[in-house]
Amino acid sequence: MHEKKSANAILLLSCQDQKGLVYNIANFIYRHNGNIVHAAQHTSMTRKIFFMRIEWELDGFVIPREEIGLVFKHVASQFQMTWDLHFTDAVPRLAIFASHHPHCLYDLLLRRQMGEFKADIPLVISNHPDVQPLVEKFGIKFLHFPITSENKGEQEERELKALRDEKIDLVVLARYMQVLTGGFISEYPNRIINIHHSFLPAFAGPRPYQQAYDRGVKIIGATSHYVTEQLDDGPIIAQDVIKITHRDSMDDIKLKSRDLERVVLAKAVRLHLENRILTYGSKTVVFE
Amino acid sequence: MHEKKSANAILLLSCQDQKGLVYNIANFIYRHNGNIVHAAQHTSMTRKIFFMRIEWELDGFVIPREEIGLVFKHVASQFQMTWDLHFTDAVPRLAIFASHHPHCLYDLLLRRQMGEFKADIPLVISNHPDVQPLVEKFGIKFLHFPITSENKGEQEERELKALRDEKIDLVVLARYMQVLTGGFISEYPNRIINIHHSFLPAFAGPRPYQQAYDRGVKIIGATSHYVTEQLDDGPIIAQDVIKITHRDSMDDIKLKSRDLERVVLAKAVRLHLENRILTYGSKTVVFE
Amino acid sequence: MHEKKSANAILLLSCQDQKGLVYNIANFIYRHNGNIVHAAQHTSMTRKIFFMRIEWELDGFVIPREEIGLVFKHVASQFQMTWDLHFTDAVPRLAIFASHHPHCLYDLLLRRQMGEFKADIPLVISNHPDVQPLVEKFGIKFLHFPITSENKGEQEERELKALRDEKIDLVVLARYMQVLTGGFISEYPNRIINIHHSFLPAFAGPRPYQQAYDRGVKIIGATSHYVTEQLDDGPIIAQDVIKITHRDSMDDIKLKSRDLERVVLAKAVRLHLENRILTYGSKTVVFE
Amino acid sequence: MHEKKSANAILLLSCQDQKGLVYNIANFIYRHNGNIVHAAQHTSMTRKIFFMRIEWELDGFVIPREEIGLVFKHVASQFQMTWDLHFTDAVPRLAIFASHHPHCLYDLLLRRQMGEFKADIPLVISNHPDVQPLVEKFGIKFLHFPITSENKGEQEERELKALRDEKIDLVVLARYMQVLTGGFISEYPNRIINIHHSFLPAFAGPRPYQQAYDRGVKIIGATSHYVTEQLDDGPIIAQDVIKITHRDSMDDIKLKSRDLERVVLAKAVRLHLENRILTYGSKTVVFE
Repeated sequence: MHEKKSANAILLLSCQDQKGLVYNIANFIYRHNGNIVHAAQHTSMTRKIFFMRIEWELDGFVIPREEIGLVFKHVASQFQMTWDLHFTDAVPRLAIFASHHPHCLYDLLLRRQMGEFKADIPLVISNHPDVQPLVEKFGIKFLHFPITSENKGEQEERELKALRDEKIDLVVLARYMQVLTGGFISEYPNRIINIHHSFLPAFAGPRPYQQAYDRGVKIIGATSHYVTEQLDDGPIIAQDVIKITHRDSMDDIKLKSRDLERVVLAKAVRLHLENRILTYGSKTVVFE
Repeated sequence: MHEKKSANAILLLSCQDQKGLVYNIANFIYRHNGNIVHAAQHTSMTRKIFFMRIEWELDGFVIPREEIGLVFKHVASQFQMTWDLHFTDAVPRLAIFASHHPHCLYDLLLRRQMGEFKADIPLVISNHPDVQPLVEKFGIKFLHFPITSENKGEQEERELKALRDEKIDLVVLARYMQVLTGGFISEYPNRIINIHHSFLPAFAGPRPYQQAYDRGVKIIGATSHYVTEQLDDGPIIAQDVIKITHRDSMDDIKLKSRDLERVVLAKAVRLHLENRILTYGSKTVVFE
Repeated sequence: MHEKKSANAILLLSCQDQKGLVYNIANFIYRHNGNIVHAAQHTSMTRKIFFMRIEWELDGFVIPREEIGLVFKHVASQFQMTWDLHFTDAVPRLAIFASHHPHCLYDLLLRRQMGEFKADIPLVISNHPDVQPLVEKFGIKFLHFPITSENKGEQEERELKALRDEKIDLVVLARYMQVLTGGFISEYPNRIINIHHSFLPAFAGPRPYQQAYDRGVKIIGATSHYVTEQLDDGPIIAQDVIKITHRDSMDDIKLKSRDLERVVLAKAVRLHLENRILTYGSKTVVFE
Repeated sequence: MHEKKSANAILLLSCQDQKGLVYNIANFIYRHNGNIVHAAQHTSMTRKIFFMRIEWELDGFVIPREEIGLVFKHVASQFQMTWDLHFTDAVPRLAIFASHHPHCLYDLLLRRQMGEFKADIPLVISNHPDVQPLVEKFGIKFLHFPITSENKGEQEERELKALRDEKIDLVVLARYMQVLTGGFISEYPNRIINIHHSFLPAFAGPRPYQQAYDRGVKIIGATSHYVTEQLDDGPIIAQDVIKITHRDSMDDIKLKSRDLERVVLAKAVRLHLENRILTYGSKTVVFE
């Protein structure tokens, strides 16, 4: 992060590892008079896949921003790249889903307000009405969609419509206690971030605090990940842990875990918004 | 830990929580002119069990050390306590079991040599001969018991005989890659400590490095625990973790994990040798 | 932390180490039919000082709560104890001082609202007006006292009057950027908690982020401590750290540090409110 | 880290940030048929300096390894780069300096033996004879140079001669308790690594354990850094910390710190041996 006069372009790309990749990408930027301000790459040695994030200044770059993709696709197709192009002055639109436990929701709203990340948050959705007053205090629209096993399909349709109406780019499940259907998830591939209150894969499922307490672990954790159809099994973006002892009751565990959940979820959201994450299989490459 | 002129007595006890426990224990020590140097207690609120570790100076205590148990058992029976009495000048005898990976074995031998814990290590047992030269350099007896599915019972009998011959108090599995039978374990209840190379309960079983790598976790861990019949499921004594990234290969993971394993196993051994651990069910109370 | 039917009493005490301390304190509780629910003690071996925190149920205790001190002082005087008596159903009154950076202030307000600690927060004081709207959204009185080198004495008098009017028990400096005078501090000994944005004693003074960046440290930290006349030198209550790399700009450092500051300050406030801290010299004993 | 069939070349370079750097370096490798296996770069935004580490396979590269420097210097001079060229099959020669506390020395010797890093250790130097037997058990030459204020100059001359005779590439001060003179240091710029037993810049100087204990910090640390003329002030390579409490005596602090020192020093040595460190001013860029 640093002060910028104008906007930058960011390319996120991956492809089969092969000779000439860095050269050709750098050449694309250099020959159009671009100044690289950040570049990171990674090669998965086991799978021979090349990943890159490269960021350069639009100021002075001879291709206008709306044509960069048109020109770059010729480089990309030569190497059969999967790629995305982003601009640092874009302001993504984020919807937060919450349930009873508001700590992650509040945390995101305050961070947004303090300028810790650049995004609009036009919409909060919950299956419970509890947080409505606070959400509306922030001037944000609140929608209440109670979920039962009978109405889940319909309600998800309404939620999806609300997301489309608000042109939402990223959905954040801030301790949202409902499982989303595969149909919903497929509308936002790698664009739904969840926070799970354990160090996955330990204690997947609905009662991780209790399981951690019962097992007598000496460390508890929190995990943020992209949501996939397989519950609590999507690509992990960030994890953190804190030590506990026999003196920690269930209430103490909850209290300590909440601090983890806030920080780990906020970190994942920021990494996504800054276009620092690539996924492959069940794994992520995170260019911090 | 602090300098002591003479030895101290340590009581480790647990019982149903009830009024008068601390008073009666403190009274037992005070009325026999004991000076308490350390006391810690814990009450499991969910199970209503009281746990205590209390340490006092033998110097000035009017009951001779060999009769303390005889006198205390009258206090203990009044409250149906489970209890153990230890003395700080005792030197426990420790046997280490190892296989191919010597880092935890070497670490324990060096810590012992540098005086980091007080124990004799008269015996190292392995199912492979690799570490014999180094073990013998430290002047320690090495026994080689190759294990197959056919000879496991017999070999364990020989191992148990060797442990008895050497009057072993504590068995440490320092990355020993064999599963012990229930018969063996029952000879040393809560006196066999294992190091597992994951943050249990995640990645139990034989291939935790590979599983952690494949799952794409951002944190790896190590867990020391007492061995019970259920594999990798005994009471956890200590855990620690370290962060990893997509850049960490399997070799990097191994390297980072080894540092954890060394420290976490050494910590568990030290806590046990200092009589700081009580167990209940699958959990421990650790009075650090 | 655990569910309680009725209130408990808590004694925090310290005195010269000597025989019979635990016995006499336990006896005081036991002979008046008290049930101890938590007890922890510590002896500073270098200074031969004994510290204790002991908590017992008022339910069934035969001394009424308003007379407990009158009775206990006879035990206390026998051993020349320094002691405090608290009750778990008391609701301490807390004032927060803030300046420009609101993250710690907001964090405390939200934790209070979510019930993470039990305290009233009737008053926020700042030398800048920025946070007034948000503070008042929480229904809390906001007082603005701009400070210059000329008016500092007068303004502190006004602040002290406001604290007295509101019967404040604890003052929390939530990134308050003014140095308090000795006169102010002496009114609230060990009852003013500050958060400093470095791992003290490294980077004391006003510019710790910049100093950490310039020195090229690989770890940054935050420290909560009681305020004494010596700047950034009071007894440390809690510290935490996070790793950084050469890639972290000043902005990244600020962002990471803020998460630390929030958690470390909240932890110190909670420990104080739960009467878990004793001080001696420049050090604390924290019975977590 | 990953299995390699043949050796790789590594360029470490820095220069004023400017357009075309990545392009020209990638072009140099690509047009000579090199396959990049790892590349990382960093731009110091405050100082406008560009840093890069780039590694490619020698297998297939059309310039023979002994001529790579001759060819690359024309690219380098165009951008006024500072640069170093290394090969992954080189085996650096390392000398360890020790005093009374052998834990870091032993740790390095065992890691070397277990293959955790690739280096020869032909020489251990100490101002005390204590560790001689153990060092010689590893088949390593031990030289004893007692240091007094009178003989320091002469002894350093002898040490330097021993280092030259053994063609030493890297000097590791493994808790060596002597301050080296500027003359000595200037012979091995950025090639002497020290471990300091505190989280620098806190507690520089000779008694960090005692200072940490006296100050009552809740966290202790260890710092590895390159040695410069200014004591404990050289560029920091790695740091780590561990939490302590009021219960930790000086002996506990020493014990916990030693584990940190071992791991932090070993990490710094490994990073240096893998050519992952660049320095500028008092700071490092570490491409992990």
